[in-house]
Amino acid sequence: MIYQLTVPQFHKMLDNLSAILQKAAAYADSKKFDVSVLLNSRLAPDQFALIRQVQIACDTAKLGVARLTGTVDQAPKHADDEATLEQLQQRIRDTQAYLATFSAADFANAATQVITQPRWEGKTLSGEEFLVQHVLPNFYFHITTTYAILRHNGVDVGKKDYLGPMPYRAA
Amino acid sequence: MIYQLTVPQFHKMLDNLSAILQKAAAYADSKKFDVSVLLNSRLAPDQFALIRQVQIACDTAKLGVARLTGTVDQAPKHADDEATLEQLQQRIRDTQAYLATFSAADFANAATQVITQPRWEGKTLSGEEFLVQHVLPNFYFHITTTYAILRHNGVDVGKKDYLGPMPYRAA
Repeated sequence: MIYQLTVPQFHKMLDNLSAILQKAAAYADSKKFDVSVLLNSRLAPDQFALIRQVQIACDTAKLGVARLTGTVDQAPKHADDEATLEQLQQRIRDTQAYLATFSAADFANAATQVITQPRWEGKTLSGEEFLVQHVLPNFYFHITTTYAILRHNGVDVGKKDYLGPMPYRAA
Repeated sequence: MIYQLTVPQFHKMLDNLSAILQKAAAYADSKKFDVSVLLNSRLAPDQFALIRQVQIACDTAKLGVARLTGTVDQAPKHADDEATLEQLQQRIRDTQAYLATFSAADFANAATQVITQPRWEGKTLSGEEFLVQHVLPNFYFHITTTYAILRHNGVDVGKKDYLGPMPYRAA
């Protein structure tokens, strides 16, 4: 189930994020302002602007999967220097391509993996704790914050844009 | 793992939400305005105000767990008539008390449970699809949106308030 919670679901949410950013671009075009205004918007003066929210969402997916599979040393590095919409879309696609390199079998030991990261100063979480209490809440936080910045600025996005399509079966 | 993803984690996030709302109350006191201004705030004119965001977060937890355990008919009903901070805090506590009635064993068949709800017009999802693609993204969406409304209005909340404490082990 850890695979389902991460690789395909993160891929889907990044698709949704990409589509929401295209809606932002269309809105900027229709109002004749530069989309970079939206990319540099925030909801509070000491909050990260939209570009950084997208970068962190991507890194939460990338590093979450890397740490859960014990492969963080092999994860691609990103310079966090995206400044344009096209560069942000490329960052999303790069993250999706990285996610696609994993299969369910790679997560066989993920729940009991001992997880740490530099800012934890040597402290650890189990893989399950890390996924449940850290990766998932953070990933959805940064996607939702990106959405909220755009929503606040008048972009016509709704809950369905955030959730994406559901794999409903007919009754 | 479905139990860990829902009952204890939702309980924790609702604790965090409750603490964030208390920060909103302290901010209102310090600035000498009524906290109901914040409770009725939103980021866009056609977005649900904060009270409704909290109600939906609570119901996403309640109905998510109820549907995953096949007990939706026994879930408590809420009238969604909260208007004050204290009433919202009570709604959160009620939701937590309901979550506490479940044990891990109640989720034994949750992944393969056939899930539906009135607005799906008879269509279904598996329990795992429902959890991964619907319940978790929605729950974190409404908590983050509540946080974002308060952050935008100057309440001193940060990521740690949202995530809550981590069960770190010493190195």
